[in-house]
Parts: sequence; structure tokens; C-alpha cells
Amino acid sequence: MQAAGRFDLTPAAAAPPAPAWSTSEWFNAPRNSTTLSAEALSLEALRGCVVVLHTFQMLCRGCVLHGLPQAQRIAAVFDGADVAVIGLHTVFEHHAAMTPVSLAAFLHENRVHFPVGVDAADPARPHDPIPQTMRRYALRGTPSLVLIDRAGRLRRSTFGIEDDLAVGAAIATLLAEG
Amino acid sequence: MQAAGRFDLTPAAAAPPAPAWSTSEWFNAPRNSTTLSAEALSLEALRGCVVVLHTFQMLCRGCVLHGLPQAQRIAAVFDGADVAVIGLHTVFEHHAAMTPVSLAAFLHENRVHFPVGVDAADPARPHDPIPQTMRRYALRGTPSLVLIDRAGRLRRSTFGIEDDLAVGAAIATLLAEG
Amino acid sequence: MQAAGRFDLTPAAAAPPAPAWSTSEWFNAPRNSTTLSAEALSLEALRGCVVVLHTFQMLCRGCVLHGLPQAQRIAAVFDGADVAVIGLHTVFEHHAAMTPVSLAAFLHENRVHFPVGVDAADPARPHDPIPQTMRRYALRGTPSLVLIDRAGRLRRSTFGIEDDLAVGAAIATLLAEG
Amino acid sequence: MQAAGRFDLTPAAAAPPAPAWSTSEWFNAPRNSTTLSAEALSLEALRGCVVVLHTFQMLCRGCVLHGLPQAQRIAAVFDGADVAVIGLHTVFEHHAAMTPVSLAAFLHENRVHFPVGVDAADPARPHDPIPQTMRRYALRGTPSLVLIDRAGRLRRSTFGIEDDLAVGAAIATLLAEG
Repeated sequence: MQAAGRFDLTPAAAAPPAPAWSTSEWFNAPRNSTTLSAEALSLEALRGCVVVLHTFQMLCRGCVLHGLPQAQRIAAVFDGADVAVIGLHTVFEHHAAMTPVSLAAFLHENRVHFPVGVDAADPARPHDPIPQTMRRYALRGTPSLVLIDRAGRLRRSTFGIEDDLAVGAAIATLLAEG
Repeated sequence: MQAAGRFDLTPAAAAPPAPAWSTSEWFNAPRNSTTLSAEALSLEALRGCVVVLHTFQMLCRGCVLHGLPQAQRIAAVFDGADVAVIGLHTVFEHHAAMTPVSLAAFLHENRVHFPVGVDAADPARPHDPIPQTMRRYALRGTPSLVLIDRAGRLRRSTFGIEDDLAVGAAIATLLAEG
Repeated sequence: MQAAGRFDLTPAAAAPPAPAWSTSEWFNAPRNSTTLSAEALSLEALRGCVVVLHTFQMLCRGCVLHGLPQAQRIAAVFDGADVAVIGLHTVFEHHAAMTPVSLAAFLHENRVHFPVGVDAADPARPHDPIPQTMRRYALRGTPSLVLIDRAGRLRRSTFGIEDDLAVGAAIATLLAEG
Repeated sequence: MQAAGRFDLTPAAAAPPAPAWSTSEWFNAPRNSTTLSAEALSLEALRGCVVVLHTFQMLCRGCVLHGLPQAQRIAAVFDGADVAVIGLHTVFEHHAAMTPVSLAAFLHENRVHFPVGVDAADPARPHDPIPQTMRRYALRGTPSLVLIDRAGRLRRSTFGIEDDLAVGAAIATLLAEG
């Protein structure tokens, strides 16, 4: 039976595969982990987990106040063996202000402990302010929250501030698909 | 696969049937409804729905600030055809201060639109300050949140303030059991 | 020099005397106090203090969430020898739901420790839902916040939710008048 | 009469002159203003105003969540002709992460419209992580809030998150000194 309500997911049969990520750098990539290692931070390596992809910019106020704390709560509530919370720094404005050196301090000061990748520029589009993964997922801005099921399908992508109840329900629905 | 995390539910096989409710009065009981009528506000009539039972006292500050708004958010996020949000006024102190006439005004002022029953005193215990349903569910105080599955089994009962993510995940897990 | 800004006070020279209060009952009236006793809870007895009159109804949600906690913060920040925080229960609707017995429990549950009077009905207007002091001050609803200076003049009366910065500045301005 | 309470100020007679500011750069310095120009952003030029100096670091979470919004509220509540709200970026850690180019974007994204100076390194202490003005004021960290009276005296300096009521009262007390 399909759960109804405001936490709708694209039905599995209709959901496209989630696009691959292109990252130039990772922070907080776990070492010595059989489930998640620096090399393994790819969708393929996470197959079998529900993936919660939180995309943000470190100077976006809605991200700092709402999106990021929500991602931290998700990481605290759900078992990391089943739900992988991944940050993606999708800088599309103020590029000089949000470099990896600033991001590193930002993650430290905000106590972000889950892995965060830096979305890479597209070498084929040297003048494009929008990074590659952000384009592939057609994200409208930051924060955006992307849910990917255990089989790697893109089931939900939302822009802006979201209700914890709806997000918790959507993740649990994907978990329950087994 | 069993969802892990901080929203644990009693496994269906180990869960007892939820005790019946004893109420002296109902507010907001819907009329002309095939699924929910004033007479039908019983666990049996709600079989097939996930039931979210929010127990409160109108003068309990944690209820007014946290528990009740959370119950209202649950009613807004989930489809009422699948999830029945029910309030239960379990007065165990200041009885003269929280009579049905005061409760009626409280529900109006707080825009509570879901059904709310008044937990009934046990006629066999005339001096017991604790009402009957509260005793049957062994609730520790207010607010308490009780989750009952589609088959009428008591799957979760928690006292105090709860995280929306965990509550949303727990309800969705019960929904997904089909 | 007159302080400017959004915390304007009626200038002392233009301010009318604050009307007397008519109360049917007091809660939290201090005993054995030379400055404030049950009998002395009148504007005259408080002459020399800045008086912060917080008018509310116990079932008014804006009062419970905002007005009342602000009055409690005022009582905590300012020295009680200089600033008298006084509550006034101005019931103008749902009279049967907000009787003194309910108010007593409400004050207990919300840990209100400052004196609270019950605004009295006007014997000359037996059918008037609006109590006497509320009429005299021409209050528009609850919560309302009234500031009275050390000389007993009505310097400010506002309806609704107010900014702590502005309220703190207004009270301190009256204090500084000496 | 001295206002009592939790918004204590150093008495004027006992207060030292506020140390001068050393800044390497200003943002939001108003142009074409007779009272405040880029050159005039000094304590001397602000003599006659109450000065609210909000010191922060752009990656300090307490600053972003509490200190900075409070400074913005102060700028909104008080008349700018009487109260000058000035930001000071006192970077003492993660220097490479919080450069002026990052600060410029931060101020834009957080809609900070009051003047913000960058606290300058002390040329005599090339290895000191703590900038010059921060040392002169002996600040303990960020956010810190410094209140300077109309005569340029240092009347209050506090570290951490502060109550709006107390801050509003302290500023109004200085304003009322005329």
C-alpha cells in the first residue's frame, strides 16, 4: 500500500537512476571503513543504503539555519548502516568566497561529521557558474534535499526548507522498501 | 528489513493489542463520515488506519508548546484516510481546573480540529485521580504519544517531547506495513 | 534628550493618569512585604515604581506563547524594587472556561510568580462581556502591555506581540526618569 | 537614580575611555553622510552617539544564529541618529577561511547593512593570531557586545549570547543620559 500525504516519492517503477556525482574534494570521508571509504563515496558504493543528499552553500542562510541542522538530525536519528547522509557543496555564486579552505573551517565550526563533497566544475563549461552535479540533478538552488533509494533510483528532490515530519516519513518509507 | 534507529517500534509479533478507550465525551467528532463518526470513535472502528493517540492536559505547558502542535503537524502531513490523529484529555491533576467546558474553549483557541476524547474516571476507583484509559496504557504523564498499527496493536508509547523526524519515520514505517 | 525609535512613550507632560484597577481576586500577592502587600496592590501603593501591567487571558495562545513569557523575563531582568510586574486576567470571551479556579492551576503550571489580579465585571453593566479595567484602559484584546511611570502616568499601551528590545528600552527609559 | 537589574553598566565616573579601533578595511561605510562617512568611522567621529559594537567571526555559529541577528534588531529598533551599530570582524582563528572576500559575500547573504570593519593585525606582533582591537578591548571571544556612551566611555562589554530585554534596557539607559 502506497503511503499518502505530503511526503510523496516518485514510485520506484517510474524513478530514473540518480546521476553520478562529480566531486573535486571530500571532507569527513571515513577511513578504515568497510562500508564507506574515501574511494567508495560514490552512489555505486552506497547501493543498498538509502542516500540522503543534502546540497548546500556555506554562506546560504537557509542552509546554515535549517537545511544543515536537519541533515545533522537525520544522521542522528537513522542508523548509518542503512541511511547514508552525504553533503554536497554546490557553489553557484560567490565562488571566491566559498573555497575549500573556507568550507573546511565552516564544517569544523558547525560540527558537521558526515562526508561532504565539493561539487566539481564542468571542464567542458569553463564559464558556467553552476557546478556539474548540480546541473545533472537540475537543482534550483540551496538548500536542496535529494533522496535516493537502495537501488540507486532518484525518488525525491526538493528545494528549500522542509518539514522534519515529512522528511522522516519519506526516508522511512524508502527504508521499509527493504 | 527492519528499519533501525531512534524510532524503534515494538515488532508486530511481540506487540500487545492496544487497550480500549474509555471516554466520557468527544469534541470534534466528525459527522456524516463513513470512516469516522461520533459513535465510531473507537479502536475497532479505526482498524485499518494507523492511529496516532496524543494524550495531553490543557494546562500542561509541554503539551501546549510541543505535543499539541506536533499532533497538528501530523494531521497536516499524513493523509487522514490512512492516519487517524486522536487526542485524549487525560486529566490527572487540577481536575476542577480542566473541565470539559474549559477544554472546549481551549480546543477552539488552539484551533485543534482532530477528534479529542475526555478520558473517563474509573467508576470502580472513585478516589483515583488517574483516569481509566491512562491507567490501561500505563502512561507516565503528559504529553504522551501512542502509535497503534493498522491491526490495532500497540507499537510505541513515549512520554515527553519527541523529535519530528523520529515520529514521522515511526508513523511511515507503520504505514508501509500495509 | 528624548530617545527616539520604535519604543516611543507618551511624553510625561502629555500622559494621563493611569486609571485605577478593579479586581475581584488576587493571586501571588506577596505577604509580609512593606512595598507590596495584598491590600497594597493598587497603583497608588506602587507609586515610585515603574509598573508593567501584562493583561492576558489564560486560553489566549499569543499570551501563553509570547506575552506571558515576556512578562516573566521582565520580572527576571529588572529589579523588583524598581519595576513592578503585575498580571491582569482580562477575560472577555469564554468566561465559563476561564474561572479563577482554572486560572490558579494555570499560574501554577506556568510558574507565574508575580501578582495577578482578576479584572472585575462592572456591576453597572451586568451583560457586558468586557471587564471593568479593560474598558477603562480601552484595551483592544490580549495580550496587551501597559507601562505606567513612577508618577502613575499611563505612558504606553500596546496590543499584541512585542519585541523584547523595544520593551526593555521603554522600561529603562522610564526607570531613568528617576 | 541608578537603574538596577541584570543590565548593569559601569558608572560613567568609573568608566575608562573606549580604546580606538584599528581596521584594515570597512564594508557598508555610508557615503555622502555628514554623520558617518568612510573616513569618519572612528569613535571620535561618533562622539555624541551611543555606540553598539558587535564583534563577530563569520564562521562562528553563535554569531550567525544569535549575535548578528540581535545587532540587526538593535539597528532596526533604535534611531540611527542616536545609536550607531558597528560590526567588527575580529578573526582570531581560521584566518585563511575568513578573508575579506568571504566576509563581503557573508554580509551580502545575511543582509547586514550596518558598517563592518575588519579588525587589523598588529604589525608589532606578526605571529599573534588575535587582532589589535580585540586585544585592546580584552575580548574573550565571539560574539562580544560592547556599549560605548555618548562621551566615548566604555560602559559594558559582554561575551556570548545576551537577552534582548537586558540589551535594550542598557542601550536606553545610555541614551537617557543625554
